[in-house]
Amino acid sequence: MRLSGFSEVLPGEPVTNRDMAERFGLHEKWLDMMTGNRTRYFCTPDSPPAVPKSTGDLAVAAALAALDDAGADVASLDFLVLTTASPDHLMPATVNLVADRIGLNDVPTFQLTSGCAGALTGLYTARALLSSGLRRGLVIGADTCMKLFPSTGEIATMSPAELINFALFGDGAGAAVVDADPDGPGLLVEHLFLRTTGMGRKPAQTIRWFGTSGAPLVDGPSGPVREPWGEEDYKAIEHHVPEHAESIYKELVAETGWALDEVEHVLLPQLNGVMTNAIGKRLGVRPDQAVNCVADTGNNGNAVPFIQLNRAMRRIRSGVGVGGRLLVANIESSKWITSGLALRHQTRAAAR
Amino acid sequence: MRLSGFSEVLPGEPVTNRDMAERFGLHEKWLDMMTGNRTRYFCTPDSPPAVPKSTGDLAVAAALAALDDAGADVASLDFLVLTTASPDHLMPATVNLVADRIGLNDVPTFQLTSGCAGALTGLYTARALLSSGLRRGLVIGADTCMKLFPSTGEIATMSPAELINFALFGDGAGAAVVDADPDGPGLLVEHLFLRTTGMGRKPAQTIRWFGTSGAPLVDGPSGPVREPWGEEDYKAIEHHVPEHAESIYKELVAETGWALDEVEHVLLPQLNGVMTNAIGKRLGVRPDQAVNCVADTGNNGNAVPFIQLNRAMRRIRSGVGVGGRLLVANIESSKWITSGLALRHQTRAAAR
Repeated sequence: MRLSGFSEVLPGEPVTNRDMAERFGLHEKWLDMMTGNRTRYFCTPDSPPAVPKSTGDLAVAAALAALDDAGADVASLDFLVLTTASPDHLMPATVNLVADRIGLNDVPTFQLTSGCAGALTGLYTARALLSSGLRRGLVIGADTCMKLFPSTGEIATMSPAELINFALFGDGAGAAVVDADPDGPGLLVEHLFLRTTGMGRKPAQTIRWFGTSGAPLVDGPSGPVREPWGEEDYKAIEHHVPEHAESIYKELVAETGWALDEVEHVLLPQLNGVMTNAIGKRLGVRPDQAVNCVADTGNNGNAVPFIQLNRAMRRIRSGVGVGGRLLVANIESSKWITSGLALRHQTRAAAR
Repeated sequence: MRLSGFSEVLPGEPVTNRDMAERFGLHEKWLDMMTGNRTRYFCTPDSPPAVPKSTGDLAVAAALAALDDAGADVASLDFLVLTTASPDHLMPATVNLVADRIGLNDVPTFQLTSGCAGALTGLYTARALLSSGLRRGLVIGADTCMKLFPSTGEIATMSPAELINFALFGDGAGAAVVDADPDGPGLLVEHLFLRTTGMGRKPAQTIRWFGTSGAPLVDGPSGPVREPWGEEDYKAIEHHVPEHAESIYKELVAETGWALDEVEHVLLPQLNGVMTNAIGKRLGVRPDQAVNCVADTGNNGNAVPFIQLNRAMRRIRSGVGVGGRLLVANIESSKWITSGLALRHQTRAAAR
């Protein structure tokens, strides 16, 4: 599989830590220090007409931009994959609304429910579809937080530990065109793995959806409370993500025979700036190797790895690490999934 | 791809039209006539401990039963796929909670967001995964309506046309073990296609999820009303599903060279008993060919085709149509997807 076109889409203007601190009654400096993120982006219903306002809007923009980057026509696509944890509806799948809007019809479409490992889940699925005989596809990762934001009344009842989640996450999308034909410019997949590693472990991240009845009452420390929309076990994430990251890179290095300190582009797992930097340090990844975006984009879930790939390609197109190697690690803490991807940049048609 | 194990799971006791009529203030005879369904099943929080109460519970039971039917150990699985329109959470994906509960780890997992075409979307994905080198997988379809049921207060404000939806749908799950090895008993895939056909057409079925803020206010005929959790354009479904069904069988017949009137087992699209019978009649499918379940199970979405496959296998194991051919048509009206599957029964190892 060759990745032949890339894109990233971030809605509207960057939202600073000062903006977030004001909105959620937190301290700006504390947010700086705790998250290491400087900005993020959010879909808002009152943004100007051209600005994406939903997961579908983001996905459409990312799809068209990736096709444009690949110089590929939508009619050349044999399939479409969307990975997201925040679809616009439960039905229809957002991917089919996206297909309609980009003018795609009569091909199989797939929407994968996933979080931080979604991008590699999408690429893994795409690789399988290509090996079954399809020739070209498009994989999109997109997420929006809008529906999960607390009301002003709820904010007043939440602890800083709960509120910090809203400063970690953000909205965005990214996409990649994938080709079965290895000839041509782009990134060639050398190794790709994906596996659930959640047996016997509690989910460290939960997002609920409530139906017609709204959030049910559950037992709280001082009487019944509404079941929260989401929960995060940040301690478990802090504990397990770095060790998972290390084992993913070790496996990729073992499979490819590449030495980590010689790999030109290392795309680190991106929960937030603080943790991404800590993982980089633990592994001895130099700043000139690391491809990071989370400090500027926030953690926008399924979008992050596509945005990293897009930024790695920008760097390569600016002349840095041309023909080089890329390693990607994705870890999903929801119910623990680890995945890794090794790619090699290729400037033009491979020798036949 | 060979389907080597089958299952179906229906929660609790059948719910009759009389039960539904009482609950929703409708006429029993009208429900009989309009839906053609006699019973359906629902997950309820207060059912006995062993009865499935969620999409995850149904999926676990279906997974274990299909493995048992195939005589396969969970450790022999290379991947797990779940298709659903009603996951228990947005994150983690229900498939990963199911993997944990059946004792599966260290394999890729996939949760596909889909409705009535979900089973064939899952099997299409599984076929691609097998062609990429994996050897055995499990595909589950499961759905629950519980979260979408209106409160007593809401029922009072709804029209019979809205309320009838609750008599059409039901809860359930089914699964199939899939093998790359064509040798062995089961159903061999001869042809499988899947495509979105929604370009320029409105979704005929929508299920929304609302986040922390609940359903927003939207313009109604006499002032603002809460946005409904779901909508169905039954007229569009009645109009388009039979013509799609006809074109799917035509394509399967053309691809396989089988004559429809000679095919032993025809698995019809299953919105409800009335429509399933109408489609069968239109195509000239004889009662001895048709494999139906919707009149007894209700339309349980992603589960239906697996339950039909399970019942076709029951029939074959009872000696009817042994070594015969099966045709499956799935149509999703959410944003219009058509899919078809042709299978051939094989009693034991094929000649090498």
